[in-house]
Amino acid sequence: MTPMLYTVADRSARIEVHPSTFDDRQAIYDILIGSGIFNQSDAECVDEMFLETWRAPMRDDRYRWLSCRWDGRTVGFACYGPESLTDRTWDLFWICVLPEARGRGVGRTLLTEAETQSRRAGGRLMVIYTSSAPKYAPARRLYESAGFTCVAVVPDYYAEGDHLNIYWKRL
Amino acid sequence: MTPMLYTVADRSARIEVHPSTFDDRQAIYDILIGSGIFNQSDAECVDEMFLETWRAPMRDDRYRWLSCRWDGRTVGFACYGPESLTDRTWDLFWICVLPEARGRGVGRTLLTEAETQSRRAGGRLMVIYTSSAPKYAPARRLYESAGFTCVAVVPDYYAEGDHLNIYWKRL
Repeated sequence: MTPMLYTVADRSARIEVHPSTFDDRQAIYDILIGSGIFNQSDAECVDEMFLETWRAPMRDDRYRWLSCRWDGRTVGFACYGPESLTDRTWDLFWICVLPEARGRGVGRTLLTEAETQSRRAGGRLMVIYTSSAPKYAPARRLYESAGFTCVAVVPDYYAEGDHLNIYWKRL
Repeated sequence: MTPMLYTVADRSARIEVHPSTFDDRQAIYDILIGSGIFNQSDAECVDEMFLETWRAPMRDDRYRWLSCRWDGRTVGFACYGPESLTDRTWDLFWICVLPEARGRGVGRTLLTEAETQSRRAGGRLMVIYTSSAPKYAPARRLYESAGFTCVAVVPDYYAEGDHLNIYWKRL
């Protein structure tokens, strides 16, 4: 349903990022389930956000989606959007890449593109909420290598011993 | 539409807290507009959350509402609920009292009741996201006097110089 507005491809054209279409719904669900990081509750939460995006009149107001194809297969996605009631603060809600496609710059390409599009839409700041759990260490390294700083920690937020880390970057 | 499950009243019965009903919609909107703190965007955001609460199938899943009457008039409300994808972390989304009813314990009664109901529903932790702006100083004092701690600050989150303060309390 969303027209393909732009495509970002690496030199070999093996990695291609584009705005998700409604047809990506199942692929996004499968990426979360196959991630080894997120669980079914997460996947259902994302699916609800995805459906909400295509449901009038909220469409495009809150959530924007990027899909990444690697050798023609959808292997990653990102969801981002403006935070309501803030002055141009944007949020990277979700980013996920299938295990077999990791280490090839898919996550970095998605993150960079989410930043670029947020900036173009007037974004001033980007925040990312993530867990302190060990399984999210690669994600935290990705954010840090992209210039995000962990500016705040909310202890035991997700569960006892599982803190909320808030990453932050000026766009 | 929501049955009145409980009522908390002070000794003089001048302050009465009860779960909001759909009939409180206009009063809640008017409280925000009349607060001198929140603006129309805030009021519209709350109204959307309020409508979402009464819209199947999400009803009661995310947002719970308390209204406070003072001498029979609805002068304050609170909105709270579980944070998705956390282990029993609850969020106080909104609390607001009309200026003419402040300093009489309305905010404290609403906050205490939100904590009590969250605890009864299994809540482990309560978090409150608020602004560092001077106009929110009375709200921050209320949270601190109720035992909440500011555990994290996200710089420039709401706007340049307007930080996000995250308050936190074990239930």
